Amino acid sequence: MAPPGELLEALRKPGGTVLCLGHVHPDGDVLGTLLGLGLALSAAGASVTFAGPHPVPDVLAFLPGSDRWQVWKAAPAFFDIIVMTDCPNPDRSEGLLEGARGPRSRVLNIDHHPDNRRYGSIDWIDPSAAATGEMIFDLLVALGLPLTPAIALNLFTAVHTDTGSFRYSNTTPRTFRIAAELAAAGADPALVSDRLYQQRGRDSLVQLGTVLRRVEVSDDGQVAWLSVPRDLVPRELVESEDLVSYPRSIGGVKVAVLLREEAPGTVKASLRAKGEVAVNKIAHRFGGGGHENAAGCTLSGTLEEAAASLLQAVREALASGRS
Amino acid sequence: MAPPGELLEALRKPGGTVLCLGHVHPDGDVLGTLLGLGLALSAAGASVTFAGPHPVPDVLAFLPGSDRWQVWKAAPAFFDIIVMTDCPNPDRSEGLLEGARGPRSRVLNIDHHPDNRRYGSIDWIDPSAAATGEMIFDLLVALGLPLTPAIALNLFTAVHTDTGSFRYSNTTPRTFRIAAELAAAGADPALVSDRLYQQRGRDSLVQLGTVLRRVEVSDDGQVAWLSVPRDLVPRELVESEDLVSYPRSIGGVKVAVLLREEAPGTVKASLRAKGEVAVNKIAHRFGGGGHENAAGCTLSGTLEEAAASLLQAVREALASGRS
Repeated sequence: MAPPGELLEALRKPGGTVLCLGHVHPDGDVLGTLLGLGLALSAAGASVTFAGPHPVPDVLAFLPGSDRWQVWKAAPAFFDIIVMTDCPNPDRSEGLLEGARGPRSRVLNIDHHPDNRRYGSIDWIDPSAAATGEMIFDLLVALGLPLTPAIALNLFTAVHTDTGSFRYSNTTPRTFRIAAELAAAGADPALVSDRLYQQRGRDSLVQLGTVLRRVEVSDDGQVAWLSVPRDLVPRELVESEDLVSYPRSIGGVKVAVLLREEAPGTVKASLRAKGEVAVNKIAHRFGGGGHENAAGCTLSGTLEEAAASLLQAVREALASGRS
Repeated sequence: MAPPGELLEALRKPGGTVLCLGHVHPDGDVLGTLLGLGLALSAAGASVTFAGPHPVPDVLAFLPGSDRWQVWKAAPAFFDIIVMTDCPNPDRSEGLLEGARGPRSRVLNIDHHPDNRRYGSIDWIDPSAAATGEMIFDLLVALGLPLTPAIALNLFTAVHTDTGSFRYSNTTPRTFRIAAELAAAGADPALVSDRLYQQRGRDSLVQLGTVLRRVEVSDDGQVAWLSVPRDLVPRELVESEDLVSYPRSIGGVKVAVLLREEAPGTVKASLRAKGEVAVNKIAHRFGGGGHENAAGCTLSGTLEEAAASLLQAVREALASGRS
């Protein structure tokens, strides 16, 4: 899906101030796209600010431009243009969008989530894109802005992370064609992999081993889960490892779940499916959301209680087929 | 590097019999290329036999054509054309090449290993290729043979496995361009990932956890290793998991080693580097070989003895810089 004309118009000569605004817990696709687009607009002469409610996680600090990222509790001013990427729900800006959106602001909402709430002045939603990174690549090409190595590295990281390193079912010929262009423009695939996967701490494999030994599988083999008590391993391990990918990797498993006790009485859940159940519908029931094959939510109660209610919902979804 | 004219000539009208011959312990790049090329030649009317000294491993049994793979102790006849791919050393056919090579046989040696011994009647060696799969793709295009979904799936798997899912430093824009063509021709990236990484056994994560808890790191943090005694976990786990990737993933590690006790007194070692030391030179000292960043060898002695001598060699290589 090509970028809409009014979006190109808005960005062709972005007079005034531009805010590239992230959502809570920004991941590779959010940061890679905001930084990639913002650096390109900066180079073209725009006055660009990068900000969000949360900082750039350590693992993504290699992204060029991340040193310009600001963490805000409240927006300090109105901005003429506010770009949000990969953010289906404006509430995820923790009020920063409302604070930065003045009467004359134009909000550019660029996303590939099918459940995007279309909260922008201009909404460009393309669920056929594997990552918002693909969309921003097409946007920069359409705008005729140069793909510097720094911009290419940001967009490559966006595409790499949202496709699980070109492994998920969203990966298409288009994904590979864009990756080829980005690599040719200077994005180094091995550097991205090194920064994302090769920076484990000395003790992290022992900790990972401790977590993996806790995996559980349902009797019918269709559901596998890991439940991680708060003090089992350091929080950094849980945040840096894609732990849910492990129960997901068991043959025959249709839904994988990671439950981690965030605080006493609060449990965060990540759900992954392999196409037979839409886990975002399960997550919605608990106030969360996401994609059909990758979703998340927060539950209250003990780890055991959260596991029981979420796994019950998963079983019901499996029993009723693709729900 | 384009396929040489004499190779195209040899394959354009392959009269007589064609043997696609694998080496010991065939991996994704060997099998994907032999099956991909052989299926294309079959479809063009050639009489093709697929064989090797070892069977197709279970994890690669999804490759189309693998049901035609024969396991030989000795070659039953001479063949007019013998194709070997991704095989730097003809000894790795365990005598099958000698047995199948008659006075009129032409051996086509197609490989991307820089240390290939050029044992073919025609040698096409391209170390710039990330995988032999890239070369066979170019070869089929040059021959004008159709890329069916079955052929594309084989070649995609070859490229995927030899680049570590597009993560290793050998991954280039060419790699992604070829992956795009193969995906467009019907290779399903998610199916490949599912078959390679999502078929773990119910107990394998607990076993993996047991192994990971044994990781050791040198005081200077440059070397990390896993040593796996024979009876610690089932052999299938060691064969199906890329265990050496775990010590390799620790930040600051320059060389990672997996040592596994195959039998009393026999230890197999896998070495991985990140560009600072050529581990194939270390492996050569113990009678093994491979690439600069990925090599292997077999040692005799106990697990402790093998670890001591190999780690000493690694330390020496690190001390002398890029050796």
